Amino acid sequence: MLFHVRMDVSLPHGMSEAEAEVLKRVEREKAQALQAEGKWRHLWRIVGQYSNVSVFDVENAEELHQLLTGLPLFPYMTIQVMPLCRHPSSIHADDR
Amino acid sequence: MLFHVRMDVSLPHGMSEAEAEVLKRVEREKAQALQAEGKWRHLWRIVGQYSNVSVFDVENAEELHQLLTGLPLFPYMTIQVMPLCRHPSSIHADDR
Amino acid sequence: MLFHVRMDVSLPHGMSEAEAEVLKRVEREKAQALQAEGKWRHLWRIVGQYSNVSVFDVENAEELHQLLTGLPLFPYMTIQVMPLCRHPSSIHADDR
Amino acid sequence: MLFHVRMDVSLPHGMSEAEAEVLKRVEREKAQALQAEGKWRHLWRIVGQYSNVSVFDVENAEELHQLLTGLPLFPYMTIQVMPLCRHPSSIHADDR
Amino acid sequence: MLFHVRMDVSLPHGMSEAEAEVLKRVEREKAQALQAEGKWRHLWRIVGQYSNVSVFDVENAEELHQLLTGLPLFPYMTIQVMPLCRHPSSIHADDR
Amino acid sequence: MLFHVRMDVSLPHGMSEAEAEVLKRVEREKAQALQAEGKWRHLWRIVGQYSNVSVFDVENAEELHQLLTGLPLFPYMTIQVMPLCRHPSSIHADDR
Amino acid sequence: MLFHVRMDVSLPHGMSEAEAEVLKRVEREKAQALQAEGKWRHLWRIVGQYSNVSVFDVENAEELHQLLTGLPLFPYMTIQVMPLCRHPSSIHADDR
Amino acid sequence: MLFHVRMDVSLPHGMSEAEAEVLKRVEREKAQALQAEGKWRHLWRIVGQYSNVSVFDVENAEELHQLLTGLPLFPYMTIQVMPLCRHPSSIHADDR
Amino acid sequence: MLFHVRMDVSLPHGMSEAEAEVLKRVEREKAQALQAEGKWRHLWRIVGQYSNVSVFDVENAEELHQLLTGLPLFPYMTIQVMPLCRHPSSIHADDR
Amino acid sequence: MLFHVRMDVSLPHGMSEAEAEVLKRVEREKAQALQAEGKWRHLWRIVGQYSNVSVFDVENAEELHQLLTGLPLFPYMTIQVMPLCRHPSSIHADDR
Repeated sequence: MLFHVRMDVSLPHGMSEAEAEVLKRVEREKAQALQAEGKWRHLWRIVGQYSNVSVFDVENAEELHQLLTGLPLFPYMTIQVMPLCRHPSSIHADDR
Repeated sequence: MLFHVRMDVSLPHGMSEAEAEVLKRVEREKAQALQAEGKWRHLWRIVGQYSNVSVFDVENAEELHQLLTGLPLFPYMTIQVMPLCRHPSSIHADDR
Repeated sequence: MLFHVRMDVSLPHGMSEAEAEVLKRVEREKAQALQAEGKWRHLWRIVGQYSNVSVFDVENAEELHQLLTGLPLFPYMTIQVMPLCRHPSSIHADDR
Repeated sequence: MLFHVRMDVSLPHGMSEAEAEVLKRVEREKAQALQAEGKWRHLWRIVGQYSNVSVFDVENAEELHQLLTGLPLFPYMTIQVMPLCRHPSSIHADDR
Repeated sequence: MLFHVRMDVSLPHGMSEAEAEVLKRVEREKAQALQAEGKWRHLWRIVGQYSNVSVFDVENAEELHQLLTGLPLFPYMTIQVMPLCRHPSSIHADDR
Repeated sequence: MLFHVRMDVSLPHGMSEAEAEVLKRVEREKAQALQAEGKWRHLWRIVGQYSNVSVFDVENAEELHQLLTGLPLFPYMTIQVMPLCRHPSSIHADDR
Repeated sequence: MLFHVRMDVSLPHGMSEAEAEVLKRVEREKAQALQAEGKWRHLWRIVGQYSNVSVFDVENAEELHQLLTGLPLFPYMTIQVMPLCRHPSSIHADDR
Repeated sequence: MLFHVRMDVSLPHGMSEAEAEVLKRVEREKAQALQAEGKWRHLWRIVGQYSNVSVFDVENAEELHQLLTGLPLFPYMTIQVMPLCRHPSSIHADDR
Repeated sequence: MLFHVRMDVSLPHGMSEAEAEVLKRVEREKAQALQAEGKWRHLWRIVGQYSNVSVFDVENAEELHQLLTGLPLFPYMTIQVMPLCRHPSSIHADDR
Repeated sequence: MLFHVRMDVSLPHGMSEAEAEVLKRVEREKAQALQAEGKWRHLWRIVGQYSNVSVFDVENAEELHQLLTGLPLFPYMTIQVMPLCRHPSSIHADDR
């Protein structure tokens, strides 16, 4: 099942650079592992924002919730989730 | 260049079914041609809405504008455009 | 899978009462059939509004989209969909 | 009487993990006691959010206010309350 | 039980004056009957608006819904409902 | 003259309980004195919110501003003011 | 008493020019009479909008409501009313 | 040239009263000097808010920007600027 | 003086193509004449919208209002006006 | 390719003046270098705001993202990006 997810990150100004670096490195590792597993199907940067647009391909909503709340940056993100389904005019096999 | 586009369609209640059918058929043909050319890279339906989320892959903003305003449903759509770029954590070759 | 759905109905002032009655009767029949099948798990009226809050229990997002767009009042509704999952503090067996 | 309640939790970044754990544990105990009493009739997690959608079944608005403001997380929640009533098309006995 | 209700009226420009007059006369009669019964406890005009702020005193949410949807102007109103309860600092016996 | 006022209170998380208690006690005393004088004509709690809906009966806008800005919780409140006048359909003598 | 009023005018596209001209001429006459009486103390055009910002000086809220709803363009205007009072730093005698 | 300006002031809760008093006193002196010069043509308090509505009469937009950013409270204000021009129905010589 | 103006055009669906063509042709002629005079300094299309972003260079706000309300599409546009001034970091002579 | 960018700056009240001065000086140097390169084509101040409206002329969205996120004030700015293209009615050679 596909979900469209937008994540906007906002780190508190008081966070030390060291702490931020650790968070970002672990976040990147998790994001890449989930991509490698095929769960995090697309990941784009929104121009000019500390934000991304993503498409997740998961078993169900429960799995998506576990993935998102397990991200190290979760406490610092505003997240919007939108369920997708196949568009009748799509010809792309991977837009399932 | 990648652009994230959301289109919400709203046909006037007074439009005849015949007119609506023609519009939708031509829209579908155009959408599929643009997908075949690789311009309209992703096309998903938003669940419960007469709306889609799409990703376009075009030469530049001018080309995107021509594609969008050339769609038969353009006069009946609310469109939001958001430029994307590669996310440093993406491992997908096609998220360029 | 559970989805929270809010539907706000707005019939055009120009619609005849006869046409509205037919729409509403068929809508009610469809809604009750979907409830009997266990797909439309909860259905409440929002006080003072021509609106409902519902919980659907479906196989996946695709099925929800087919159910919602198949409702006779679909062209006259504004719909908001929100995926739900089990809350760790819930003790209700049917809040799955 | 039924009320639809949405709660969005936002703990201050400065709160210690210990303090947060205590708050969450007591919150969970209170939530489960209220569910056991039949007051907190439904409790779902909203996917990707530190938020829930709930349905309360209380004597009156006063009782709901006492329940909500008595929750340990109340000072950290944004709460939206919407009165519900039975939908004429509902066939579920428990959607009273 | 007390409910705070705001009603904003918007008659279609195409409605004949005769039809509008009938609607308004019957609305006024209904409003005054409900006030006489003690159901519609307060009714104020918002300055510069075709709108009112009201307080209803009803048995439950179901009764409020029947009263509001039974008003002749209901199809032409945007309605916002907010449940109230006694404020601990109130000294007015009738703010129950 | 009647004014409809909504007050939403938000105390900073860092405020000590002692300081909050003093503020709330003095606020309550002031609120009750103004009610006894007939200036603060109605005061209701909004269910699930640290908020109230009030109706003030004052000589003029200047007097209302002095009353509101003189409340101890004023620096911690978001306030919305809406002038009211008698509704032509009201039959309540005290909705003047 | 002073009130700040913003009026945004939106004539239906179907209205004949003749009807619009009559409405505007009577509106202008009324506006100028109210200015001559000292009731409509300031009247400015907002640049690029079919809108005005005004300051009214009236006995009370009731009088303002009668003036505004008596304007010929009232059914075609969105109106926002905001009560004003003297600013402690004002040195202008006419900002009373 | 006339500009309509709304200023909403929000002092941080942590600011000392002494610092706040100095800011406010210098703000008042500046505001009164600008009024005496004829630059700050109107200044009203919005009832129930730490906010004002003002009309400035300046040479051009550049001058307005210098005046506003030179106010001691500028870092603590949300400011909205709206250019005005003479309304064709105005009869007030000073609404130029 | 520089003003930033955004115009969003929305032609009624009922307007004949012939009428729309005349409006657009005259609009284009007026727009080009104003550009030739130096009044309409910049004019860009917003991608995917029937909208433009413009910068006007006029004597004063009054002149801008006359230019905008004189455009043939004015009755069909939503317009937002924002006064600009020179940025202290600009090195472009024509960003005056 | 042209992009319309609005930047709203909000420095935390706790930032020292020295730190703010350094940030602003480096920001100005970067902004002027980018203007000299022709990347930052227009830069205007919005009157009454610590904000600017800019037009960037870059190779692609990726380059814009690098420029914006490389600005020293980036962590303190809210940024809105809107792709532009040539307007068919423009006669200005530099509005490409």
